[in-house]
Formats: sequence, structure tokens, C-alpha cells
Amino acid sequence: MKKPSIVLLGAGYGGMITATRLSKQLGHNEANITLVNKHDYHYQTTWLHEPAAGTLSPERTRMEIKSVLDLNKIKFVKDSVVEIKTDAKKVILENGELDYDYLVVGLGSEAETFGVPGVHEHAFSKWTVNGAREVKEHIEYQFARYNNMTEKRDELLTFIVAGAGFTGIEFIGELSERVPELCKHYDIPREKVKMYVIEAAPTALPGFDPELVEYAMNLLEARGVEFKINCPIKEVTETGVTLASGDEIKAETVVWATGVRGSSVIEKSGFEAMRGRIKVEPDLRAPGHDDVFIIGDCALLINEEINRPYPPTAQIAMQMAETCAENIKLLMKGGSSLKTFKPDIKGTVASLGGKEAIGVVGTRKLFGAQANFMKKMIDNRYLFLLGGPGLVLKKGKNPL
Amino acid sequence: MKKPSIVLLGAGYGGMITATRLSKQLGHNEANITLVNKHDYHYQTTWLHEPAAGTLSPERTRMEIKSVLDLNKIKFVKDSVVEIKTDAKKVILENGELDYDYLVVGLGSEAETFGVPGVHEHAFSKWTVNGAREVKEHIEYQFARYNNMTEKRDELLTFIVAGAGFTGIEFIGELSERVPELCKHYDIPREKVKMYVIEAAPTALPGFDPELVEYAMNLLEARGVEFKINCPIKEVTETGVTLASGDEIKAETVVWATGVRGSSVIEKSGFEAMRGRIKVEPDLRAPGHDDVFIIGDCALLINEEINRPYPPTAQIAMQMAETCAENIKLLMKGGSSLKTFKPDIKGTVASLGGKEAIGVVGTRKLFGAQANFMKKMIDNRYLFLLGGPGLVLKKGKNPL
Repeated sequence: MKKPSIVLLGAGYGGMITATRLSKQLGHNEANITLVNKHDYHYQTTWLHEPAAGTLSPERTRMEIKSVLDLNKIKFVKDSVVEIKTDAKKVILENGELDYDYLVVGLGSEAETFGVPGVHEHAFSKWTVNGAREVKEHIEYQFARYNNMTEKRDELLTFIVAGAGFTGIEFIGELSERVPELCKHYDIPREKVKMYVIEAAPTALPGFDPELVEYAMNLLEARGVEFKINCPIKEVTETGVTLASGDEIKAETVVWATGVRGSSVIEKSGFEAMRGRIKVEPDLRAPGHDDVFIIGDCALLINEEINRPYPPTAQIAMQMAETCAENIKLLMKGGSSLKTFKPDIKGTVASLGGKEAIGVVGTRKLFGAQANFMKKMIDNRYLFLLGGPGLVLKKGKNPL
Repeated sequence: MKKPSIVLLGAGYGGMITATRLSKQLGHNEANITLVNKHDYHYQTTWLHEPAAGTLSPERTRMEIKSVLDLNKIKFVKDSVVEIKTDAKKVILENGELDYDYLVVGLGSEAETFGVPGVHEHAFSKWTVNGAREVKEHIEYQFARYNNMTEKRDELLTFIVAGAGFTGIEFIGELSERVPELCKHYDIPREKVKMYVIEAAPTALPGFDPELVEYAMNLLEARGVEFKINCPIKEVTETGVTLASGDEIKAETVVWATGVRGSSVIEKSGFEAMRGRIKVEPDLRAPGHDDVFIIGDCALLINEEINRPYPPTAQIAMQMAETCAENIKLLMKGGSSLKTFKPDIKGTVASLGGKEAIGVVGTRKLFGAQANFMKKMIDNRYLFLLGGPGLVLKKGKNPL
């Protein structure tokens, strides 16, 4: 009897946890497991605001896949996914193709522009290791250029963050914390640096407790951040952003953080999707495809309590991965009733730079040092789930 | 009787050593000493190839003037010199003016373009703290951008150094030493990085011993540097350089290091000068100006042995400063015969990155670790002359 082929697409939070679970639960003779990823490393998407602002080495956010997964049990293919052909049960890669019996799609997300022109051309929108390194070096380059200008152009030192959601707030938290140090290093008067967070929605951090939102905004404003809430951006241009009002803010640096959409591979492969996300069955399979599981940011799941989709978070991706691994095992054993996925939101913490953070754990609100401690514990817990205590020691964050 | 006013322009090697000598040799009641400088810090011009390549923090190359000079004895004015009016014995500053009885001009140098178009617009030519920081951040930015490009533009990773003199060689030495580390950090295949040193003269390091030049070139070539000797540059453009042959080398980074000319203030003030340098009297005074001393890169001095000007080095600037301080004291005491300046070239060492260097001390040729040791000793010796053992401990280099 031929061993079934399980193909995992993407080595993000979802793909990595699925891979560790399957490799532990299945014996060598039970299945061929193949993981496909663009890079030979996994990285922590939720940490990227730190290297992007230059407050953490990008090396701390990534790890070689072979250092975490047992590549005797999992075959790793470094390649980019072009298309999934569900009829033929094939995945087309840039440099080859793979047949599957079971497919797990964890291809993550891309920046959502909401049709605003100029985002891809003039804003930094890639929340990847490469993207974060580019933002960091771009920012430092502006500081370094400023004093060499005969006519000082203040827009070099104007930083716009589009979007006051989780990513935008965490990024401006790091950047605003770092600005005094950058000013000192590059001999820039502090008042020359302008930071804006521009948000189309009527509040920053929509969905967060209003008291926590106020705490975060006050803290960031005290560090010199100016919020423009209820203020849609019409266009990103070579010289800055144009607002819906017609006003322009000149800035050499625009960081795009208005949220994400699922991978474009989803639509290219003919799945029915909303902004690259597939509304999955309760067992995480794609509707009409009994052998295809969708996890992480490509999966759309409705929170029945508020009748809105769950946000695409690492926490949910990892929980999906555990259910997905179990369901593949059940399918392989010929089971017909699979497990229903039920997220268990343990808490949400947003870091604000330095020792500051806000968060909710259970029904409890956390501020400042306490929230910061919790944030680091969450980051370390993921490392522990993925690679055990060794990985925590190697890449973890000291919570004190 | 009115105390004479001694005004020192520029806080480079010459100005700083003149200031320390005068403040030690003259009592409070003997003279008013004023030092004018654009920044409130002094920096080590000869170290700037290191922060420019990113192998040393720029902070290590600079020090606050107040931390080195006794500002109870010397009045410090932070301002830029616009013009010297010798008839009125006045110095015009951007924000004021100063009268002098004795003037010491140590305004240093500017990049010499030799009339090549595009240098100021498209090349990095400022060997200053601000300039070095800009080059470093520019380089890192190119590495960071590369992997984010849909179509990889290899000119992002092409680095051209114009000029194979001291500065050009020392800079490419640091950069070539750092490239493997940059490639690792930014996930760039090493072979993607191209480094060129382009020199119009028929040899690299003109004036250096040929055996040492060969050692340096072999070493740098082994690190991937390509030399184009006897190869004048016709123009620097937005996309790279055009050679006299008409060939173009595409590069996002062109570092200009073909040598220097004296400060433009010299010509603006009506002194007779060759490329901003005044051919000084043997006692270092400007011809026809009994109260104006010219030291450092603005002074032109012929080495009678080879009938060519001495190169503008830190070593000579410092020795000029000592003679200058003595001559001012002699003038103040009504002396008519001043001391003749005679340089005492103790040695010359060029660093090549890492633990590598070449040099001549006396008649002895030095290579590798030995030359590197000597280079660091020279750097530390200057710190000792300027600020004693405390400054060596604070800013010095470990020679081992």
C-alpha cells in the first residue's frame, strides 16, 4: 500500500505547528510529509515591528527550518507556490510540482491596500524579514542624510504609519521609543522628527477596550506621535500621502499597516474567497474539497458571538494547526467525522515599545509593565510549543 | 595693555593641537584664545573609513570639544566661517564676527572632483561624521532593498570607490572585510556583490612602496575587489559611472575618494591659493600676512627632496600645530625670527580591514598584523597627544 502524501504549504505559525504535530503523531511508515516554503527559515510575523523599527535584530525573529523541524521525518522543499490544482491534486511550484493526497494551505497574508493608489510603489507594506530590514535601513538612512543636505528637507524626518490597528500601533510604539536615541546618534534636534498615525476608522485599535486604547494613545502622544483618526488616505505619492480632505502630508517614509488579505495564490487557484480568505468548514476544510485544509490568515472564520470574522492572529493560526493535524490523522484512519475547530482566545497584548504594553487576558485589563511581561511570556510560549525549551533559550525574550 | 586675541579656525587635528599647546603655554592673562568650529565636537578624519563602511561606531571617531579642551582657558564658538577679512583683521561667521590679532587657519579640506561632472550630485564625497553615517546607512539600505525587488537590480549591490589613494584603499579594505557579514545578515549570495576601485593614475597608492602596493591589491582582490587602474572616470551619473573609454558601470553607490583640496573659505577670502591650499612661508605664515598662520590641509608645503607637495596628512597637521603655537608665542614676545617648520615623517600605515594593514616605519616595511598593530598605536598616540591617557582609554583602539 502506497503511503499517503501530506503536503504543507507555508512555514508560518500554522504550517510549522502542523508540521511538528504531524511529525510527532505519525510514524515513518504512515505518511510522506512535505513542507514547502519560499525561504529556508521560519520567522515570527508578530515580532516584525521590532526589527522594522530597529529595536531588535531580525535574526532574533527567524530560525532555520532545519534547526526546528526533524527533516528526517519531514521533507523540506525551498520553493514558491504558484498555483494549487485541486482537480489534479497537484501543487505547481516555481521550480517543480508536487502531488498530494492531503493538502494544508498556510500561505499567510499580503498587505491590503483597500484600493488606495500608490501603496505598493511608495509605501513599505511588506511585513516579512526582508521588508522589516528595508524599513529599518530606510529610516536610519533618512536620519543619516538629513544633516548632509544644504537645504534641510524636514520630510526626511517625517514618518507616517497608515493604520492604527495592531501592527501600526506596535510599530509606532517601537519607533517612538527609539527616536530619542536616533536623534542623539545622528545629531538631530528631537523636534524635527514628526510621527503620524493615520486611521480611516473612527478609533485606534478597533475592538480593543476603550480604556486601553486611551492609555496607548496618551502614551504614544507623550512620545510625540500625532494621531489622525477618522481620516482616510486617498493616495500614497512619491512625496507623502494625500488625505481624503485633499491635504497632503509630506514624508519620505510611509509604512502601510492597514491590515492584511489572504495570499493571492488562493484566488489564482480558483477557490471561492473574500480578499484572499476562504470561508472554511467547521473542520477547517475548504468547501467542496475534502482533502484540502486551510489554516491561518487564508482561513476566514466567523465569531458567532459578534457575527464578525476572527482577526488573523498567530494565536488562532496555531490553534487551527493543532486541529488540522488531528483531522488529517482522523482522515487517514478512514474516519468520517472530523473535529470542529473552536478557538480559545487566551488573551491579546499589544506592545508599545520599551517596557510598555496594553492587553486583555481573560476579562482582566493589563497596562504597562504587567502587560509587557505578559507579551513576552506569550512570545516565549510560542517558541516553547514550536521547539521546546531549547528554542526559548535561543530566541526567547527575557520578560523582566 | 590689552590682551591679544588669538583666533583658531577649525577644530581638526591642527586646530585642536594648537589649542591644547597654547592653553598650556600661555597664562590666563597673556591672551584671549577663541576656537571656532562648525560642530561642538572634534572628529578623527583619518578614522572615517571605518564608520563609513560600518565597522566602527561613528561615536568612537568623535569627541565633544568641551571634554578635551579646557574651556576656562579657551573660548569656544560654535559657528561656520564665511570669510576672513585680513585687511580689517576680522573673521566673518554665519552668526557673527570676530576680531583677531593672530589668526590660525585650520579649516581642513573638501573633496576634489577634478572637474568630473556629477560628483556632488551622485557620489558620496563628504568625509565627515555626517557623511560617513550617510554612506553606512546607504550601503545597508541597498542590501536591505535587494531581496524586496521583484526584478533584482544587481547595481544595488555594486559599490564603486573612485580613487585608489589612502582613503579609497582604507575604505574598500573595511567594506570588503564586512561584505561576507552583510551578505549573511541580508541573505544575499556573496557573488552578487561587486566592488570596484577605479583610479586614473597608473598605480594604486601612488608614492607607496611597490611591494606594499602589491600586497594590498592581492589581499583586496582575494576579497572580491576589482581594480581598474589607469582608468579615468568621465562622469558620475544617476545610474553609476561613465569611464573615459565610454563604458558604463552601473552602481547605486559611488564613493568619491580621489583626494582633497583646501577649504573654499581660503579662495573666498582672497588668498593666493592652488586648489584651496596656500603655499606657506617656512614659518607657516601666509605670504604677506604676518599675523595669519595656515596649518593642516589648507597649507601647501613642498618636500624639497622630491620637489612635490607633502600629502595632507594628520601627522603633518599636528606637527604644524606645534610649530604654529611656538611661533605665536615668539611673536607675542616681540620676536622677529620665527621657527622654521620641518616635518618629521615617522611612518605611514594604511589599514586594509580586519587585522590587515601595510606600512612603512622609518625604512622598514610592515605587513599584516604588525602593520595593523602600528596603525592602532598611531591612532592611540594622537589621542594621547590631544587628551592624555584618559582619552586613550575612552576612545582608543585595542592594538591586540
